[in-house]
Amino acid sequence: MTEAPTRRRRSGGRSGHAIRRGTSAIEQLPWTIPTNIDRPTEPLSEDGVQRIHNAAMQILEEIGIEFLNPKAAQILKDAGCNVDGENVRMGRDFVMEWVRKAPSSFTLTPRNPDRQITIGGDHIVFGNVSSPPNYWDLEIGKKVPGTREMCANLLKLSQYFNCIHFVGGYPVEPVDVHASVRHLDVLYDKLTLTDKVAHAYSLGKERVEDVMEMVRIAGGLTQEEFEATPRMYTNINSTSPLKHDYPMLDGWMRCAARGQGCVVTPFTLAGAMAPVTMAGAVAQSLAEGLCAIVLAQIIRPGAPCAIGTFTSNVDMKSGAPAFGTPEYMRATQMTGQLARFYGLPMRSSGVCAANVPDGQAMWETEHSLWAAIQSGTHMVYHAAGWLEGGLIASPEKFVMDCEVLQQLIRYMDPAICDTSDDGLGLDAIREVGPNGHFFGTQHTQDRYTSAFYQPFLSDWKNFEAWEVAGSVWTAERAHQTYKAILDEFEAPPMDESIREELADFVARRKVEGGAPTDF
Amino acid sequence: MTEAPTRRRRSGGRSGHAIRRGTSAIEQLPWTIPTNIDRPTEPLSEDGVQRIHNAAMQILEEIGIEFLNPKAAQILKDAGCNVDGENVRMGRDFVMEWVRKAPSSFTLTPRNPDRQITIGGDHIVFGNVSSPPNYWDLEIGKKVPGTREMCANLLKLSQYFNCIHFVGGYPVEPVDVHASVRHLDVLYDKLTLTDKVAHAYSLGKERVEDVMEMVRIAGGLTQEEFEATPRMYTNINSTSPLKHDYPMLDGWMRCAARGQGCVVTPFTLAGAMAPVTMAGAVAQSLAEGLCAIVLAQIIRPGAPCAIGTFTSNVDMKSGAPAFGTPEYMRATQMTGQLARFYGLPMRSSGVCAANVPDGQAMWETEHSLWAAIQSGTHMVYHAAGWLEGGLIASPEKFVMDCEVLQQLIRYMDPAICDTSDDGLGLDAIREVGPNGHFFGTQHTQDRYTSAFYQPFLSDWKNFEAWEVAGSVWTAERAHQTYKAILDEFEAPPMDESIREELADFVARRKVEGGAPTDF
Repeated sequence: MTEAPTRRRRSGGRSGHAIRRGTSAIEQLPWTIPTNIDRPTEPLSEDGVQRIHNAAMQILEEIGIEFLNPKAAQILKDAGCNVDGENVRMGRDFVMEWVRKAPSSFTLTPRNPDRQITIGGDHIVFGNVSSPPNYWDLEIGKKVPGTREMCANLLKLSQYFNCIHFVGGYPVEPVDVHASVRHLDVLYDKLTLTDKVAHAYSLGKERVEDVMEMVRIAGGLTQEEFEATPRMYTNINSTSPLKHDYPMLDGWMRCAARGQGCVVTPFTLAGAMAPVTMAGAVAQSLAEGLCAIVLAQIIRPGAPCAIGTFTSNVDMKSGAPAFGTPEYMRATQMTGQLARFYGLPMRSSGVCAANVPDGQAMWETEHSLWAAIQSGTHMVYHAAGWLEGGLIASPEKFVMDCEVLQQLIRYMDPAICDTSDDGLGLDAIREVGPNGHFFGTQHTQDRYTSAFYQPFLSDWKNFEAWEVAGSVWTAERAHQTYKAILDEFEAPPMDESIREELADFVARRKVEGGAPTDF
Repeated sequence: MTEAPTRRRRSGGRSGHAIRRGTSAIEQLPWTIPTNIDRPTEPLSEDGVQRIHNAAMQILEEIGIEFLNPKAAQILKDAGCNVDGENVRMGRDFVMEWVRKAPSSFTLTPRNPDRQITIGGDHIVFGNVSSPPNYWDLEIGKKVPGTREMCANLLKLSQYFNCIHFVGGYPVEPVDVHASVRHLDVLYDKLTLTDKVAHAYSLGKERVEDVMEMVRIAGGLTQEEFEATPRMYTNINSTSPLKHDYPMLDGWMRCAARGQGCVVTPFTLAGAMAPVTMAGAVAQSLAEGLCAIVLAQIIRPGAPCAIGTFTSNVDMKSGAPAFGTPEYMRATQMTGQLARFYGLPMRSSGVCAANVPDGQAMWETEHSLWAAIQSGTHMVYHAAGWLEGGLIASPEKFVMDCEVLQQLIRYMDPAICDTSDDGLGLDAIREVGPNGHFFGTQHTQDRYTSAFYQPFLSDWKNFEAWEVAGSVWTAERAHQTYKAILDEFEAPPMDESIREELADFVARRKVEGGAPTDF
């Protein structure tokens, strides 16, 4: 049993943590697409980059990747690959020729065009946790299967926080909704509760086609308008080692054909599904990713693609996956160097192995988020709410992660390092001299409201004041904030006729039986 | 009241966290002096560096610094400074001429020469928390004044962990020992319980002279041997803005004269003791630090000096200091650029504002530790055990921080990014093919014991196994580890005659009355 429920009951209601009800639950940063101004951390020499590239090419040329989708294999064969049953091999010149057709940057435009995001360049955007089958919060105090209500609540957080730029897969799997119609209900919730970029699972034809149609309806778009510029995206994982399965390839090809965002993220745990050495795991991951991008480019040259990394290591004592480790960080940085070599936008993640939102959860998540910044990652999946290696979604972790994301966004604000005369403040130093303080100077008065980042969750009170306020630890403050946000949540506006069209579509597709569940 | 004691009683004894009693409390990394292989993060352009340098020089040339120590002021006057009462001004050519005499790197050699550390170059070393007046642990569950026993226990942790390279000031102030003899008792404990580099407070003549003498005795050194190479160090803080006080300058001059390590660390909280703008706070901090280094170089050209930074911001709503903020990170990075410009080794810190070892404590500490790595910091103070802006020392936080420090040390191991044929593992990929896994391959078997960092505190079990083991959150696991380490602690060997000489010295100095307490 966890200690959480008891802890909550004991100190519930005693907290003095400032939640301004009646106005807004928190003061947060405005919506912005951050610019990552730091030069990437590059552990590889140029020779090292070439050696990993060469290894990836050797995998594609000599070993090959299995494409468990005959249509995909045929497309690659027709384009000139060596196809032997499911095994597909392709030469490096061929790979590079097609990869070069992928744009180095693209936009994703959701139903609210003000929420458009750019994937690439020097931008970095963050998304919510996606796909955990389970949920944990301090009130429930144990790991439980996800429900539609939990999923909707996490969607509300995803909409509420300006530091969350896109809404990935289901923030928790609502297993109380039948798998055949789950995508319909969740996408209805997602498209009505949020107005940010949405995602489609590539799990068979019906799911991805239904989601594309719902995104089109939500945006009030014609089919032509939908395909004219990317409106949403999918993410596929290879079945490492060296395999792409049928339904993922199916969805991938459908999204590519219609010009939607295509992100491929091999899940290469070093020592299990990839070599125990990180450079080898990165090379394998790149090979698995690049061949999918080649496929997308053949289908639609210029299709918006991103290469993802999910290379971490296992605990060699137990085989359990580990996240936010030193090896994870370097693998992410190495992948960043190679993504720049290929001219592709890159995706990584905010991850941890911890089971509850405690100290370990935050140091592991910090390591993965810093790896994202250091690697020049453009799109950070799972950046809020992830626990237990992705098996649990937690609203407290979500809120804590958003505090960290806000700090990272502020960290990227070049205003902090202003060295103009105003920034140097020499006149203020002269004015104050050796016997004063700066609180009262005009230089301070003119700037104090915006000079520093103001956290919504960090408690900067001294111990005594913190004790008077109930001795509330971070996870519990996050729980209070989560509740306050839900209380005041308002869905973004949507035209009533569009909402009805969406609801009608869902109803009709349910009558038709939804999607097969034999994937 | 905190929740901690109850929490501990409830789940105490149920934990399955692996602590191997009888052999050793934890498996930890070996003692090593890490090499920081990352290129520093540099938010300033070359022009920005010049502008901050210019502002620092203008402060020294036009505004001046107060030296509240007539001897120091006289030395500076004799060397050519403009001295007006306590105000000392010095020209930039003069500053640069003297600063250039300081070495860019130096060693500190404690009584165990195997524990020698290098301050400078591409090395980074970590020290324990120093100087909190209060203590907190999960068992006590509240903030209490430090005692000699608590201090000794934290010294044991400082010795035990190989990731702690030097022992800073008192890890907690033992306020149960009279201030006149506190330095004698703590230094006796420090020099017998640890064999790592020690520190002397610059709080009046007696304290610093006593500590130098005790370090000399502990090392079995003659006076000449003691002065031949740095054996220990002091750290002084300016009284910002623009002031150096009497006792700190006194200790500074004594350490410089005898060739011991001299670290100067202005505590410039932007908006309070320094301009509200970070570049201004950095410029002021540099001016306050550089003039102390000039003084040390005049006294002993080539004296081993380091420039410290403790530039952070206040909470502009309450005036409370904040740590590990985005502004703190950039100020540290900017200071790193300037430290390289001046050719000086640099000190920064591992800090947080959190009151307990929870999520906030770890994200703030992570931010400060990453700032240290990104800035090219050589010496990281307070890297383990710090809470409440330095007002509390905590053994749980100490243990949690050491887990993070170990991960950072492993992160700096270039072996992770090995791109040799072994590192790429192409033969293993070929051997496993698309239908296997890598657990059983020879490539994995040859490397699995050392391929990945193995944490001692992170719990990588899945939720169910973690629950069976007692649902123990990180802070409580850290408490158990702390207790296990104390149980098995063995002091490093010391020649009995040296121990007696140290004890005799302490006894004699106590009879003489110790040190004045009117500082």
